[in-house]
Amino acid sequence: MSHPRQHADTDRLARQIDFAVEIDKLKQIVRQTYLMDRSRKENDAEHSWHFALLASLLAEYAAEDVDVLRVLRMALVHDLVEIDAGDVVVYDAAARAGQAELEQAAAERIFGLLPDDQGAELRTLWEEFEARATPEARFAKAIDRVQPILHNYATQGATWRDHGITKQMVLATNAHVADGSPALWAFVQRLLDDAAARGYLADPPEGEHA
Amino acid sequence: MSHPRQHADTDRLARQIDFAVEIDKLKQIVRQTYLMDRSRKENDAEHSWHFALLASLLAEYAAEDVDVLRVLRMALVHDLVEIDAGDVVVYDAAARAGQAELEQAAAERIFGLLPDDQGAELRTLWEEFEARATPEARFAKAIDRVQPILHNYATQGATWRDHGITKQMVLATNAHVADGSPALWAFVQRLLDDAAARGYLADPPEGEHA
Repeated sequence: MSHPRQHADTDRLARQIDFAVEIDKLKQIVRQTYLMDRSRKENDAEHSWHFALLASLLAEYAAEDVDVLRVLRMALVHDLVEIDAGDVVVYDAAARAGQAELEQAAAERIFGLLPDDQGAELRTLWEEFEARATPEARFAKAIDRVQPILHNYATQGATWRDHGITKQMVLATNAHVADGSPALWAFVQRLLDDAAARGYLADPPEGEHA
Repeated sequence: MSHPRQHADTDRLARQIDFAVEIDKLKQIVRQTYLMDRSRKENDAEHSWHFALLASLLAEYAAEDVDVLRVLRMALVHDLVEIDAGDVVVYDAAARAGQAELEQAAAERIFGLLPDDQGAELRTLWEEFEARATPEARFAKAIDRVQPILHNYATQGATWRDHGITKQMVLATNAHVADGSPALWAFVQRLLDDAAARGYLADPPEGEHA
């Protein structure tokens, strides 16, 4: 098949166009999260858009001053490695452990399509995000978790119930939201109290407190 | 149904959460553009993500200096009015004329969900984009057109052929790309020459030059 890169004037633009074509695949990486009307699960491209727009609107709640442009660029690229590595349920610790190596290889290949300067910049940004190494990364990680929690609440816990997730599991897995935004973590806690009362979450195992 | 807004501490956060829930519908507004593997048409949320990421990567080709954060925020919100007004083929001038009023009403409703300051800010940003009133808006409009042209080329003209679009129609409808980025417009012209040679575009009517 012919490729648009053949019509780019310079090798630099050609590599940027290659990347633009490759990342279209993010639209086919399906997540565990349902759309709010429960009609289907959402994909990584849709999630990345929602995340970026919410980050832009909710930046006033960041724990520290953040460079919003940097947060938005993190949001836009944070899931690209899943084109090769796939999406793994955030509550599945065993599966997540095996992901790190796959994701590093994916980062090498996908960011490697870009001109060297841009590839290195986006890879650094993705690693900063993954490590929650900066105020921007901590805030971005918070929004990346708040978005699917809103979806779960709106769908009466559809994904939580699919996977037997209890309120304690949600609190433990997402506690880092507080590092990025104490205000949004307080909101999430109130939402989870109500979700538990309504039966949107799985019951804790016998003998444990609710 | 219960709503997450009931768990927001302040009216301000409650309105932001209302907006976050409402805009999930953008994921169901289907465009005419096919995914690059032709498996299905893409939706506005996926397009907005792709547009924003490409704008971030291709900003070096903008005709004038641009504030990239402003461009990204335009990309993230530019299609929200289509939640109410729907998507219209860019080549259908008659349908587009009727859209303006619908889109104004949609902007009123959807941006009106937000706290007043943020709603006014996003509406102004959307109007700036629509009017191509600033360097940021002209560059954003260019990327908004380059993205589906890449999709059309990658799918051997799938949407162009669905709608009988000729090379002359693509050139006329997208000529404003040159205002946002002469370099990207030159790239598009080379891509269209090749697309026409390969038969990806409809033939011009009898008696007109190709």
